[in-house]
Amino acid sequence: METLYILLVLLVVTRSLGELAVRFGQPALVGELVGGIVLGVIATLFSGHLPVLAGLTDDPVFKALTDLGVFFLMLLAGIEMRPKEFAEASRGSLPVALSAMIVPLGVGFALTWGWLPPSDYRFAQALFVGTAMAITAVPVAVRVLRDFQRLDSRLGRTVVSAAVFDDVLSLLLLAVLTAVIETGGLPGAGRIGLLLLKILLFFALAVAAGRYLLPWLGRRLQKFVLDEFEFSMLLVLAMGFALLAEGLGMHFILGAFVAGLFFSRRVIDEKVYDDVRQKVAGITTGFLAPVFFASIGLHLDLGAVTGVPVYLAALLAIAFFGKLIGAGLPALWLGFSRREALALGTAMSARGAVELIVAGLALQAGLFSQPQPPPPVVRYMFSAIVIVAVVTTLAVPVMLRPLLATAPSANQQ
Amino acid sequence: METLYILLVLLVVTRSLGELAVRFGQPALVGELVGGIVLGVIATLFSGHLPVLAGLTDDPVFKALTDLGVFFLMLLAGIEMRPKEFAEASRGSLPVALSAMIVPLGVGFALTWGWLPPSDYRFAQALFVGTAMAITAVPVAVRVLRDFQRLDSRLGRTVVSAAVFDDVLSLLLLAVLTAVIETGGLPGAGRIGLLLLKILLFFALAVAAGRYLLPWLGRRLQKFVLDEFEFSMLLVLAMGFALLAEGLGMHFILGAFVAGLFFSRRVIDEKVYDDVRQKVAGITTGFLAPVFFASIGLHLDLGAVTGVPVYLAALLAIAFFGKLIGAGLPALWLGFSRREALALGTAMSARGAVELIVAGLALQAGLFSQPQPPPPVVRYMFSAIVIVAVVTTLAVPVMLRPLLATAPSANQQ
Repeated sequence: METLYILLVLLVVTRSLGELAVRFGQPALVGELVGGIVLGVIATLFSGHLPVLAGLTDDPVFKALTDLGVFFLMLLAGIEMRPKEFAEASRGSLPVALSAMIVPLGVGFALTWGWLPPSDYRFAQALFVGTAMAITAVPVAVRVLRDFQRLDSRLGRTVVSAAVFDDVLSLLLLAVLTAVIETGGLPGAGRIGLLLLKILLFFALAVAAGRYLLPWLGRRLQKFVLDEFEFSMLLVLAMGFALLAEGLGMHFILGAFVAGLFFSRRVIDEKVYDDVRQKVAGITTGFLAPVFFASIGLHLDLGAVTGVPVYLAALLAIAFFGKLIGAGLPALWLGFSRREALALGTAMSARGAVELIVAGLALQAGLFSQPQPPPPVVRYMFSAIVIVAVVTTLAVPVMLRPLLATAPSANQQ
Repeated sequence: METLYILLVLLVVTRSLGELAVRFGQPALVGELVGGIVLGVIATLFSGHLPVLAGLTDDPVFKALTDLGVFFLMLLAGIEMRPKEFAEASRGSLPVALSAMIVPLGVGFALTWGWLPPSDYRFAQALFVGTAMAITAVPVAVRVLRDFQRLDSRLGRTVVSAAVFDDVLSLLLLAVLTAVIETGGLPGAGRIGLLLLKILLFFALAVAAGRYLLPWLGRRLQKFVLDEFEFSMLLVLAMGFALLAEGLGMHFILGAFVAGLFFSRRVIDEKVYDDVRQKVAGITTGFLAPVFFASIGLHLDLGAVTGVPVYLAALLAIAFFGKLIGAGLPALWLGFSRREALALGTAMSARGAVELIVAGLALQAGLFSQPQPPPPVVRYMFSAIVIVAVVTTLAVPVMLRPLLATAPSANQQ
């Protein structure tokens, strides 16, 4: 069976390199990404001998499996985020989160807008780069802070809640971006209004379902006798939310994420919650997420390094300094020390999964093939963004180590 | 996303009807099957309005998902079967198992051989029906006995170990059948010898891997730091075994099953085993198995009821009495009471999952479209076999209740 062959190769390569990455102190996703890049290079070099591998990115079954991978990835992110703690910790972190998004978003947008020749797609492409720059990877931030045993400090809580805020905000930004990609240019006031209305409608329906339907179901869960009923129920819920989001013009991953967010210990029995969470984690981390990360790597064209080196360097600078300034300045204002503010900005500059998801969506939507023929910046845009994601995710733990090792005051409070 | 829409509809329908089935004292798979049948009828009636549903059985993504469903189903069956207990309980049950296979196999084969006009496919088709008649569904038998709290009696242990034997034997029979379907007729001695050699080679390689590679890996599992490493390892192992089986001319489900069998508490830390087993159970029972059962139901053509009523009735009689006599007589010889022997034969007559898998494989291989034009018996053969699976799985718990309620001696020893 061809699907099994593909999955076997992908799992062996991504998980082996993931293990290697973790042993070198990096998040597993870096290894999985590198696995995809390696497979992509092999597929390009030996396309005649490995037709299945070479044709993988166009295979509908593989596409469906990567879609399921993103679906589960976002569902898991939502499940593992506690709405209550998030709300509590987020009061102080909102200025950090907002500024940490707006600065790189603005600079990334402006740089790309200035770099691109005028075209119908200039706005969408500049917004895409801005969105990609604005993202902070929650799982990467959490993982790095946990490794340094700083997750439960004031610094750690602020980083995580600001990152979570940015995650939600970037999903909203993604909704705008999706609409902009569809129209190909700057949407009119009416369209933006309609989009905001749809976003509001989605959240209203989602909150209503999360507030009333889910607790109602949660209380009745014991009445259902079917094996694995809870797991099926979460999937049905997440798929329903995902299709609702898609139906209202947003991307389906937003629905999966929100469904996971509402599936919390407050509405579901703790034992059931933990059981279902572990199952979603297994199927995601151990099976479908590596397939998704590898698929991103498979698309990577390292040509950006030689094709648009100056633009790439500028993007990398924005990725780091945008977050450093955007998150660091409000942190100083909130009373953090200079070193802590530096650590906070650095911790928030990892991009990881969500940036790759956004890049994958834009690629699928054909954003990088317009105008015809695409100028070099556009042709290498996807490649540049993936390089930024890999480099930031790789660099953050390395840069954070000296900053955290000598900032014991971060443990106060 | 179309895949999510399909999965959502399938999950809601199959799991709702599964819940209903369980409440009526039936196994969930009956409800899931009925769900597929209902969707199939709806798709036929409204094919113009529901193009996605109507075209489902030809969709490559849906096919890949059902393949993954069978893969996980057989992997789970292997995981939940304990090789050691199986070996201990099986000593006495081998005559029961052999006779319970040979009798319905022989009668089913003879009936179909006699019914069919001479053709190149007569042997393959008769062997298919014989194989389908020979099957006993382990999960159905286990579930029914557990419901009656008779799993841990002499009767229960004998039923389960004989059913397990039959499961393994029917997989071997399936390997022969696969080869026969490929050649389209009676294979020569050389080919049969080669097939047996390949089967032996597969089991030799599988046993070597299970005996040496897996315990070696099991002892080193703690050295791996990657999240969900064990789950990924089991998947890689099962996919490797599945592709090995396929490469050696057997069906890939045999490999998944054997991989699960070797993944036991003896080679893997108990906590890891339970964790991984629960994850496989979640993804199987709660997600992909219902998709598989529904896909079988989607193919069902109830025409067999009116098209070949006498043949269908004969098959149903063979399905029940073949197991009743085949398993009951050796049970009497082993010292069971008449009532117990009757209960044993009845418990073993449920077909359930494996018969549906075999029927699905034969359908995919095109066994029911030859010779052109196919005679009615062939045209309705798939439909008749699915009906037999549903009816036996439905009837066994009902028939078993009075037999077990008044046979307390079965609890002795």
